[in-house]
Amino acid sequence: MNFQNIDKYIDLNMDASLADLARLVAQPSVSARREGLVECADLVVELFKRRNFQIQRFENDGAPIIIAERKGRSDKTILFYNHYDVQPAEPLRLWKTPPFELSRNDGRVFGRGANDNKGNIVNRLLAIDALLAENNELPCNVKFIIEGEEETTSEHFGPFVQAHTELLQADACIWEFGEVDANDLPLQFLGLRGILYVELEVETAKRDVHSGTGGSIIQNAAWRLVWALNTLKSGDEHINLPGFYDDVLPPRREDIDFMAALPDNAADYKKRFGVKEFLNNISGGVDLAVAEAFLPTCTICGLSSGYHGQGAKTIVPAKASAKIDIRLVPNQRPEKVLRQLREHLDKHGFEDIRITVLSSDAPARTDAADDFIQLVVKTSGEIYEQPMKIVPMTGGSGPNAIIQDALHIPIATLGIGYPDCRAHAPNENIRLDLYLKTAKHITRILSEFGKTKD
Amino acid sequence: MNFQNIDKYIDLNMDASLADLARLVAQPSVSARREGLVECADLVVELFKRRNFQIQRFENDGAPIIIAERKGRSDKTILFYNHYDVQPAEPLRLWKTPPFELSRNDGRVFGRGANDNKGNIVNRLLAIDALLAENNELPCNVKFIIEGEEETTSEHFGPFVQAHTELLQADACIWEFGEVDANDLPLQFLGLRGILYVELEVETAKRDVHSGTGGSIIQNAAWRLVWALNTLKSGDEHINLPGFYDDVLPPRREDIDFMAALPDNAADYKKRFGVKEFLNNISGGVDLAVAEAFLPTCTICGLSSGYHGQGAKTIVPAKASAKIDIRLVPNQRPEKVLRQLREHLDKHGFEDIRITVLSSDAPARTDAADDFIQLVVKTSGEIYEQPMKIVPMTGGSGPNAIIQDALHIPIATLGIGYPDCRAHAPNENIRLDLYLKTAKHITRILSEFGKTKD
Repeated sequence: MNFQNIDKYIDLNMDASLADLARLVAQPSVSARREGLVECADLVVELFKRRNFQIQRFENDGAPIIIAERKGRSDKTILFYNHYDVQPAEPLRLWKTPPFELSRNDGRVFGRGANDNKGNIVNRLLAIDALLAENNELPCNVKFIIEGEEETTSEHFGPFVQAHTELLQADACIWEFGEVDANDLPLQFLGLRGILYVELEVETAKRDVHSGTGGSIIQNAAWRLVWALNTLKSGDEHINLPGFYDDVLPPRREDIDFMAALPDNAADYKKRFGVKEFLNNISGGVDLAVAEAFLPTCTICGLSSGYHGQGAKTIVPAKASAKIDIRLVPNQRPEKVLRQLREHLDKHGFEDIRITVLSSDAPARTDAADDFIQLVVKTSGEIYEQPMKIVPMTGGSGPNAIIQDALHIPIATLGIGYPDCRAHAPNENIRLDLYLKTAKHITRILSEFGKTKD
Repeated sequence: MNFQNIDKYIDLNMDASLADLARLVAQPSVSARREGLVECADLVVELFKRRNFQIQRFENDGAPIIIAERKGRSDKTILFYNHYDVQPAEPLRLWKTPPFELSRNDGRVFGRGANDNKGNIVNRLLAIDALLAENNELPCNVKFIIEGEEETTSEHFGPFVQAHTELLQADACIWEFGEVDANDLPLQFLGLRGILYVELEVETAKRDVHSGTGGSIIQNAAWRLVWALNTLKSGDEHINLPGFYDDVLPPRREDIDFMAALPDNAADYKKRFGVKEFLNNISGGVDLAVAEAFLPTCTICGLSSGYHGQGAKTIVPAKASAKIDIRLVPNQRPEKVLRQLREHLDKHGFEDIRITVLSSDAPARTDAADDFIQLVVKTSGEIYEQPMKIVPMTGGSGPNAIIQDALHIPIATLGIGYPDCRAHAPNENIRLDLYLKTAKHITRILSEFGKTKD
C-alpha cells in the first residue's frame, strides 16, 4: 500500500468530501422533530451507491436504518456505526452562520452535524475513496450501519440489531465519534456507562386543593415524591436500591493506571461549573477521573410539582414528578436495576409512584489489550505526534452495548472531534487538519486489519 | 329605629347601590399587576365623600390606604376592613360576560370584584345610606380602613396599622367578607390560621452540568433540596421544626362543639378533590373539620429543579427551589417559626438553603362569647331563617391578626358571599337576595351597637 499516494489523494479530495458534507448538512434531519429524516436517509444512500456499496434500507415508524456493505480483499469485516440525524439547531440567534449551510472559515467548517455525525460519515467515505483510488479494492470488508434516531434514544436500533445479527456479523466495530484532547492528543474511549432514565410520577388528587383547606387533610403529591426520593439515595451518595451494587465491577489496576495518565480536570471543572469542591471529598486527579466514570450514579435531573411562578400560591399539589438518571457500570444491567427500583419503592410504601422508562442502555466496554484496539492505537502513532491515549471508561452513555451484546466484538472510537467542536450546541464545527488526519488514520486501520488472521 | 322604613329604603335603593358597584367594577384594580389602583382609590374616596365621611388618604409605593370616618350618636366605634384591589380576571375565555363590566342576570350580578371585595364596600354603604335616610345620624361612629394590596399579601397594611393605632381606635371590627353555606345559613367565621409562606432555594453550581460528567462528582441542587425537605416533615405528617408544637393551643371543648354542628364535608371533599381518604386516618365529620382548621401544617406548594419538559435531559441541576406554606394556629407566631426553620435547616447541615419569606400572618381568633359577636349573631336571626352558625376557626389565613394585635378588639365576619360566588375565579358573582339581607343585617348591628355601654 502506497500511503504517500493515499495521503495525497485525501489532501486533494478534501474539498469534494466537504461538498458531500455540505449536501448532508443542507438537509435538516432533526430526529427530535422527525424533520427531514427520510430525505437525509436518501442522501446517505446515494453517497454509498456512488461507491458501489450494496444497500439495504429498513423502514420503521421512526427513521430508516441503512446497511451499506462492500466486500474487500480479506475476509475480515469492519462495522462502522454512524447516524444521520442531528440535534435541533436552537437557539438560532447564537449561530454566527446559518446552521443548515456548511460554512468554511479559517481552517474550520461550521454547520449542524458537521461533527456529529454527518462529518464522520463523509470522512470515513473519504478514506474509502482514497483506498479505492489506490487499489481498486478495499483491504477488508466494510459494513456501515447508519440510523436516524441516535439523538432521541435510538428507539428502533436495539430491536433492529437483535433481529439482524446475521446481517451485521463483523470482526470489529468503529463507533461514531472520536476526538483529540486540548493538547491535540487523540483519545481512544473504550467504555461507556449504561443508563436507566426514568420519570417518577405520583398523583394524589384529581386537582390541586387550596392549602387552607387541604393542607392537613389531603395527601400532597410533592411530599409523597420528596419522601420517596429521599429513600433512593442517602446524603453520603449511597444508592439504596436492593442489590444495586452487587454487580458492580470496580475499576481494575490498569484502568486506574490509564486514568492516572490523563490530564487532571479538577481545576477546569471547578472553574467551568463554579464549584469549590467535589462530592465524596475528592480533590482531583485520578480519584476524580475514576469517580466520574467508574461510579454508578442516581441523579435527579428534574423536579416538578405545583406552582413554580413568582410569589406565593397556596395549594396542595395533586401531581408531582421527577426525572431520574441512573448511570450504570459494568456489569450492571438496566432491566435489573428497573426491577430493583420498583421493588424498593414498593417496599417503602410507595406503590403509588409510577415509573416510566425514558431511556435505557447497558454499560459496555472493550479491553485495551484487545488486538483490534492495539491496531487502532498503533496506527494512530503514524498520523498524530503521539499514539492514542486510552480512556478505559467515560461517564457518558450510548447504545454501543447493543452492538456488543449482539455481536461480541471489540468497539473502538475514532472521529474528527476536538474540545471546541460544539456538538449539540450552536456553531458546531470541525477542524480541517483533524479531518485529514482522521481519514488517513482510517486508511491505515483498514489496511492493517486486512492483513490480520484469526 | 323604624326598620320597616330602613328595609324599604334598602330594597328601593339597591339599583343605585349596584350603579356604584358598576363604577368600581369598571375600574380594573389588579394589585398583582399594579393596574388601576390609584384610579380605583379615587373612586372609593368619592363614594365616601358623597356620604360626608372624613377622608384620610395615605400614599405608599404599593396602593393608597384610605381611612374614612363618620361620627355617630354614641361614642362606640365600629371599624370596617375592606380592600379595593381584585384578583386578575384571567383566564378570560372562561368568563361568560366581560369581567370588568357589571352584568345582571336572573337575580345575580357578575363581574370581577362583585363579591371580593368591591361588592361588600358598596353593600356596607347601602346600609349606612338607609340609616342616614331614616335618622340623619348614624347610631355609632363608623370607620373604614380600605387598602389596595389584599390580593398580594397586604405588604403595607401591617406597618401602616402599627404606625396608626391611635387613628384606628375602635371597639369592634367587621372583616371584609362573610358568606352563607350551601343551605343559605349564614356563617360567622371567628378565626383564621396564620401563615408563613417561604421559598427555599439552593444553588450548588453556576450552571447545570451534564450528568454523564457530573453525576458522581458535582453536588446536585435537587438532591440537596429533597434531603432538606425530607427533614422538615415525616411521613406521618409530624412537623420536625424544633419547638414547633410548643405554642399550639388545642381546640377547646366549645370549638369542637361548634365544629360538630357544621355539615360534614367528607363526601363533598372526596368527590370534589377526587380522593378516597383523608390524612391521619380521618374519616370525616367533626374530626375532619377540626383537622382542617385547628392543625398547623407544612405544605409543599411547589417544587422546581432542572428539566421539566418532555423526554430525557441528562443534567445535574445547579438550582432547586420549593415553595412552602406553613399554617399556624393560636398561639404560634410566624416570626418564631421562621427562626425555628432556619435553626432546623442549619442543625441538619443545610446552611446553604436560602429562605425568602413571601407571606407572613399571625393566627387570630375572636371568642364566640364576646359581646359583639353575640350581638352580630343575634341580629342575624332577625334577617335570616336561622341565626349565624359559629365557625370558630377556618383553615385559611389573612391579615386580621394585624388588627387584633394592634387594637385588641373582636373581629366579626359578615358579607355577601355564598358557595358559588366564585371569588378569585371566572364569573365572580353575588346573589341580590343576599345583597339585601346583608345590608339589612348591618343596619341592625350598627343600631344595636350604638345602644351598648361599656
